[in-house]
Amino acid sequence: MNGKSQADIEEGTAFAPKFDAEGLITAVVTDAKSGELLMVAHMNKEALAKTVGSGEAWYYSRSRKMLWKKGETSGHVQRVVEMCVDCDQDSVWLKVEQAGAGACHTGRRSCFYRAVPLGNAGGVPLEFRDEKTFDPGAVYRKPG
Amino acid sequence: MNGKSQADIEEGTAFAPKFDAEGLITAVVTDAKSGELLMVAHMNKEALAKTVGSGEAWYYSRSRKMLWKKGETSGHVQRVVEMCVDCDQDSVWLKVEQAGAGACHTGRRSCFYRAVPLGNAGGVPLEFRDEKTFDPGAVYRKPG
Repeated sequence: MNGKSQADIEEGTAFAPKFDAEGLITAVVTDAKSGELLMVAHMNKEALAKTVGSGEAWYYSRSRKMLWKKGETSGHVQRVVEMCVDCDQDSVWLKVEQAGAGACHTGRRSCFYRAVPLGNAGGVPLEFRDEKTFDPGAVYRKPG
Repeated sequence: MNGKSQADIEEGTAFAPKFDAEGLITAVVTDAKSGELLMVAHMNKEALAKTVGSGEAWYYSRSRKMLWKKGETSGHVQRVVEMCVDCDQDSVWLKVEQAGAGACHTGRRSCFYRAVPLGNAGGVPLEFRDEKTFDPGAVYRKPG
């Protein structure tokens, strides 16, 4: 905990992000205007520093094992309007202005386009809630 | 990837949650009415199954290394109105009805009560955005 007490971390004004065993912190990204949840991503120390410094969202891809600037390929950059940190400082919340037709690499505004039916033991099909707003093949040179 | 292709995972109707190396999936929790981000937590397979089955939020505490039902101690249970899964199925979004005065164990509605100033190299104090709505000492027998 960087030598800080729980009270320092939760009630203090020092930003002391707590990275996990992989060196990552969770980033929750919502549309600053509509409040819609757009995506969940991860940041390493460098991505977080670049985001704070530039006011544009940078992440760390766990699958590609690399730093990436959101919108680098697609043009769908995210300008950060406000960034908040949670009580134990292991998650950040980015309220962003999302450029382009959406945040999701599948061609939708939000990554959360399918609902999980509740009140059963599982095995019930997911329900689609959202349609594609752009053609990912045309926007991404290399989707994924 | 459970033998499923990327297309199956992203465009299919089978719920195939992708747990990380610790066996966890990220859960983003918003207020179903206001849209406010309340908290970010984690679920293991059992917490996810209990949430889907009961329609109330269960999580896995990484610090306490145990399953917990939100509101078990405080009474601040979360009834899940809708649960969505993201494109690569490693995060879920819970829209909940939050019982009681808040979701955060510090006594606030949301865990995200401090903003990180942007456009600088860091080291600038966090700015408080939210006040306590309840007394955590009175609500939790054992805070944390």
